[in-house]
Amino acid sequence: MSIHPMWDNFPAIKNDLAQSYHIIEKKIRIRNKDVEATLYDLLHSGGKFLRPAYAILFSRFGNPSKQDHKKILATAASVEILHMATLIHDDVIDESPTRRGTETVQAKYGKDIAVYTGDFLFTVYFDLLADIGESQKTLKLNAFAMKRILLGELDQMYLCYNTNVTVRQYLRRVNGKTAQLFSLSCFEGAKHGKADLAVIAASQQIGRQIGIAFQILDDILDYTVDSDTMKKPVLEDVKQGVYSLPLILAMHNHQAEFEPFLNKKEQMTATDIEAVLALIKQYRGVEQAQALAERYTNKALKRIEHLPNKPEKEILMTITKKLLNRSY
Amino acid sequence: MSIHPMWDNFPAIKNDLAQSYHIIEKKIRIRNKDVEATLYDLLHSGGKFLRPAYAILFSRFGNPSKQDHKKILATAASVEILHMATLIHDDVIDESPTRRGTETVQAKYGKDIAVYTGDFLFTVYFDLLADIGESQKTLKLNAFAMKRILLGELDQMYLCYNTNVTVRQYLRRVNGKTAQLFSLSCFEGAKHGKADLAVIAASQQIGRQIGIAFQILDDILDYTVDSDTMKKPVLEDVKQGVYSLPLILAMHNHQAEFEPFLNKKEQMTATDIEAVLALIKQYRGVEQAQALAERYTNKALKRIEHLPNKPEKEILMTITKKLLNRSY
Repeated sequence: MSIHPMWDNFPAIKNDLAQSYHIIEKKIRIRNKDVEATLYDLLHSGGKFLRPAYAILFSRFGNPSKQDHKKILATAASVEILHMATLIHDDVIDESPTRRGTETVQAKYGKDIAVYTGDFLFTVYFDLLADIGESQKTLKLNAFAMKRILLGELDQMYLCYNTNVTVRQYLRRVNGKTAQLFSLSCFEGAKHGKADLAVIAASQQIGRQIGIAFQILDDILDYTVDSDTMKKPVLEDVKQGVYSLPLILAMHNHQAEFEPFLNKKEQMTATDIEAVLALIKQYRGVEQAQALAERYTNKALKRIEHLPNKPEKEILMTITKKLLNRSY
Repeated sequence: MSIHPMWDNFPAIKNDLAQSYHIIEKKIRIRNKDVEATLYDLLHSGGKFLRPAYAILFSRFGNPSKQDHKKILATAASVEILHMATLIHDDVIDESPTRRGTETVQAKYGKDIAVYTGDFLFTVYFDLLADIGESQKTLKLNAFAMKRILLGELDQMYLCYNTNVTVRQYLRRVNGKTAQLFSLSCFEGAKHGKADLAVIAASQQIGRQIGIAFQILDDILDYTVDSDTMKKPVLEDVKQGVYSLPLILAMHNHQAEFEPFLNKKEQMTATDIEAVLALIKQYRGVEQAQALAERYTNKALKRIEHLPNKPEKEILMTITKKLLNRSY
């Protein structure tokens, strides 16, 4: 059991997270012990549990009964499981050797097991939604979010090696790939928490904006020196043709300068990577991306400010601000 | 539009199948045109639509309202979509170049697109269930069936190259991999058709037995000469370590004779395959498998005989008997 230390300051949230964690642990029991072990590894590898946390935080703006609280914990578990499923299938696509410092399912057991393990998590997700007894409308919304996540992934594949990819295309991709699930988490939390309709509506927007900011910041990390290890970026994604915001912004109107390096694709050398990083620096790709992330975070913070005054409002503010600084 | 000619003799069923087909066509529209084209290819490649047909047939034992009928058509579409999703992911695992004479998604677009295309179909399946407004109990049952299907696939992988695999293990695998979905199709048809509880209970058993017989017969085809093309079996599955019923039955107590050939795995030559086929013939593997399929079909037929007297009972009998002869 390992809830990320970032939640230590918020014991009430941490307690709920631990319960959701426990639901996941129970649901991923499966007679195939290799698959089970892998899922436990992934679960125990110290993710931040952000999506469940946002669901739980938003639920506190209402007045949930004991029965509602059960639904909230199951919902928090369900969004994390959907997240885990997409991680595993993404690793298959990216052929990633590690995730959060742990060997990926596909690296350890091969693509085949990884495909089925992801599928298995889809069934667990689905099973949890059935347990919760979601309304028809919420089920539709879940199916819609799941579909948007996949469309985002497919978009990403189809924009591969395209040096003319626009910020708009990037945002559409991110909106699907990441923001949908944050939005769904906040919405379902607010809904099962019996929050006011205004809060429920705001929760979807806040989740979407946080999701976009979160993904931009995640993408920025790929282009910056790791401050802990001082490791230089290796631009693995760039080699595979996945161009994210800092590169897209730097490349705008300067494609011709980048293309000689990028066009080498998987054959890009350390020197090519240095050259691309230098160009990104020259055209302030990271700074521009940071500014956009900040804009989305501020939009989210502004909406959070208008939420009813509850202790969870402060936590939401703190966590969301921290997201921008990424001090954890 | 191409409903399999086997339904030409049953115009009422064919008409419902065409409507379910149309639901699928609409639901698989997606902005990624490559994925869409592939899904249309798979849909149009002339599957028998057996699972939807069994759902529709069982619905006729009740007295469905117009509203129920809509649900039945959507249910029929949903089981076919789940079937399509598992086909696509299976092809990824097996690295199959073709399916029903058409290039597979993974052969045409690569594994990556195939993984996401399968995932996309899971979301469509899920979306359809939400449309139907399934009860919590039925949702649980769907999640359970989906899980059993996956466990069946995982079992198959874990029994790879195991010459001691038992009939019991084979049946457990088949029960998950194939019988679950047939059982679910029959059950949901009967339920949405508002059939009697006795019919609903029988439908699950009948579906399961038909599913097992169907899979055994499918597996037998891998070991027998194709009567149309006179093509000899290539035992592709056997090379990959997937041993099915005719081989398992022939091998029983004779493993030592088979192992010198089987142990060459993917390196098995045409001569090795001839030798294995000769041994299967010697130990009557196909005949024994046929007898077991017959037993399951007869169990199903016996239960069908006890269903209320409706024209659909005759159709069920005819279709199910034909399954054993596999004249289509």
